[in-house]
Amino acid sequence: MKKNGKKVLILLSGGQDSTTSLFWAQKQFKQLETISFDYGQRHKVELISAKKIARLAKVKNTVIQIKEFENLKHNALLDKKINFKGKDSVNKKLPASFVPGRNILFLTVAAAFAYTRGIKDIVIGVSQVDYSGYPDCRAEFIKSMEKTLSLGMEYPIKIHTPLINLDKKQTVLLGIKLGAYKMMAHTHTCYEGTKPGCGACPACILRKKGFDEALVKDPLE
Amino acid sequence: MKKNGKKVLILLSGGQDSTTSLFWAQKQFKQLETISFDYGQRHKVELISAKKIARLAKVKNTVIQIKEFENLKHNALLDKKINFKGKDSVNKKLPASFVPGRNILFLTVAAAFAYTRGIKDIVIGVSQVDYSGYPDCRAEFIKSMEKTLSLGMEYPIKIHTPLINLDKKQTVLLGIKLGAYKMMAHTHTCYEGTKPGCGACPACILRKKGFDEALVKDPLE
Repeated sequence: MKKNGKKVLILLSGGQDSTTSLFWAQKQFKQLETISFDYGQRHKVELISAKKIARLAKVKNTVIQIKEFENLKHNALLDKKINFKGKDSVNKKLPASFVPGRNILFLTVAAAFAYTRGIKDIVIGVSQVDYSGYPDCRAEFIKSMEKTLSLGMEYPIKIHTPLINLDKKQTVLLGIKLGAYKMMAHTHTCYEGTKPGCGACPACILRKKGFDEALVKDPLE
Repeated sequence: MKKNGKKVLILLSGGQDSTTSLFWAQKQFKQLETISFDYGQRHKVELISAKKIARLAKVKNTVIQIKEFENLKHNALLDKKINFKGKDSVNKKLPASFVPGRNILFLTVAAAFAYTRGIKDIVIGVSQVDYSGYPDCRAEFIKSMEKTLSLGMEYPIKIHTPLINLDKKQTVLLGIKLGAYKMMAHTHTCYEGTKPGCGACPACILRKKGFDEALVKDPLE
């Protein structure tokens, strides 16, 4: 397949989904850059994974400091006193790990960063199938975000979501197909920040489900 | 007029437009809060104005630290080496003071803050008439942003823009009608951060134009 000559920016959290998205982008685009966010997450260790993965994949990685969410102290991803197994305090249909506006903010900062570098394509590894109930992982939201960014910056932003309709099993299989299997050993998933993973938090459970259903051994274990 | 019993959050920069919007909101809503952003602007003195205005208006003010834009160092509002009179380095149709994604980010943080407090109404003092050419001040953008926030947080956000179709003259006259004239003495406008104002930057020029056309003496002078 002929690669796209344009530059692309991948949101790299250091997890399985963003790493698979990075491998997807490597097949599609010639010039890649990655961006990661230090937003006060409990599992800050994922940033070390992101740096390592970017280095191994030979792509530039920029970590952007985001301080706003720390002021909000609303949810389990930021506050150790809140249990992951509970529900969001405002919307009981959402999990306690919901950070309101997180992907909106990440995509906005990524788009502003992209603007200053003449990049118009952004890749994010969200899925509306296995998405933990987060509303900012749905296709309808991404479409609206793309329009908002393009209008607000008067600059055409395209958001690519290669995993949007894949469940965790399909994401594992796509990763293998793209040659990302070995790299999965360096990804970080656990909300608690432990490595290889606590095995009990919602993120660990979802990851295990994906590998189990794909009948593949998780290289992280 | 009967006031709306709901809570409202006003983006208060400390300038003329956001102060007029605060006075507008006081006529409409019973419970008000304001939010301001410290994003590395050259004219950080506007935050002191915001605090003072909030205190005089007897409304709560929260200042949120935003570090992302400092990493970008792209434009004249953040970088003293860039001249205000020039054009944006990416889009030559936009002024050098354009901060890509600024209002998208401000509205996202305001909405996340509002979410944690059960607030669904947000007020921002943008105008698509005298808007310095910023694309993130247009009604079409605001409409799209409102939809993106509501979808992304699964929470109905309403963005009020009382000045959207007013030019500077009309904003001055609205401010007087709302009883904000005296308060205008405490607002800050100048991009250079000087007080009462350098008189030469685009923001000072626009402010002067408004008061001159309204045939009103600027109380700041």
